[in-house]
Amino acid sequence: MTLAFEVVGPGDWPGIWKIFRKVVAAGDTYPYLPDISEHEARVIWMKSGGREVTYVARRVDEIVGTAYLRANGLGLADHIANAGWMVDPRFQGHGIGRPFAEHVIEEARRLGYHGMQFNGVVATNTGAVALWESLGFSIVGTVPDAFRHSKGEMVPVHIMYRRL
Amino acid sequence: MTLAFEVVGPGDWPGIWKIFRKVVAAGDTYPYLPDISEHEARVIWMKSGGREVTYVARRVDEIVGTAYLRANGLGLADHIANAGWMVDPRFQGHGIGRPFAEHVIEEARRLGYHGMQFNGVVATNTGAVALWESLGFSIVGTVPDAFRHSKGEMVPVHIMYRRL
Repeated sequence: MTLAFEVVGPGDWPGIWKIFRKVVAAGDTYPYLPDISEHEARVIWMKSGGREVTYVARRVDEIVGTAYLRANGLGLADHIANAGWMVDPRFQGHGIGRPFAEHVIEEARRLGYHGMQFNGVVATNTGAVALWESLGFSIVGTVPDAFRHSKGEMVPVHIMYRRL
Repeated sequence: MTLAFEVVGPGDWPGIWKIFRKVVAAGDTYPYLPDISEHEARVIWMKSGGREVTYVARRVDEIVGTAYLRANGLGLADHIANAGWMVDPRFQGHGIGRPFAEHVIEEARRLGYHGMQFNGVVATNTGAVALWESLGFSIVGTVPDAFRHSKGEMVPVHIMYRRL
């Protein structure tokens, strides 16, 4: 089935929010509170355009994933990008994550970013770590106990980076 | 001469801005643009209270340094603090930085943070790196080329961390 990666459109928020709330409710990958309000989620996830962009992965008419791209720092550090992805749990393992990641990484390069950095890849999220490593990212550092996992313990997060 | 570390007061911004503009104009330690507007600087530096606090170092009646303390992440990561310090260049080397740093670290502990993380210590700022190491911080990772130094080259930044 055709998978399309697109810049978010005006009617896409409800489809994104359906995914967002499911992903954060698990409390095992993103630091957003599991009971985050729809308003707060929207402010966080929906970027304003330019070099800060929100994307959707669409299959037929359904949004099956979403991503954001932004500068990781400000001013003299704004040449490094940051990005995050969410795939609908119903479609995880369906081959969406990798091509969607590749698309947004390519977008970051096109928009002039020099590198991409993730600030808190939860260490227990080994699937994500493996995906990023296979896409050229390295763990450049690890912060102990930086994430309060839904399982009740504090787990380390990795800082991962790749040049673009 | 007596040095006092205090939570920022309503009339302290002009004294802070005098220091802020000088420090960022050098373009060698903070990512804020060297020509940042006073309004933007104020929004960035002045925290709202609670666990996000701005401090001043005062000697007699003069503000000689300033610092902020905030959560480094949101939600499930908000137990790690982040902080930044600026000392008036006229008073650098006068023994202000170390006790001021110790004061804010102690404040972070008192406010319940579990650790403190710096996200971008400019690698060429060796004095700062040495100070943080002497205060119990370790370099947990380094991101290459993440800071556009005023000298015209991109330099690495360190992520530094200590438990509280």
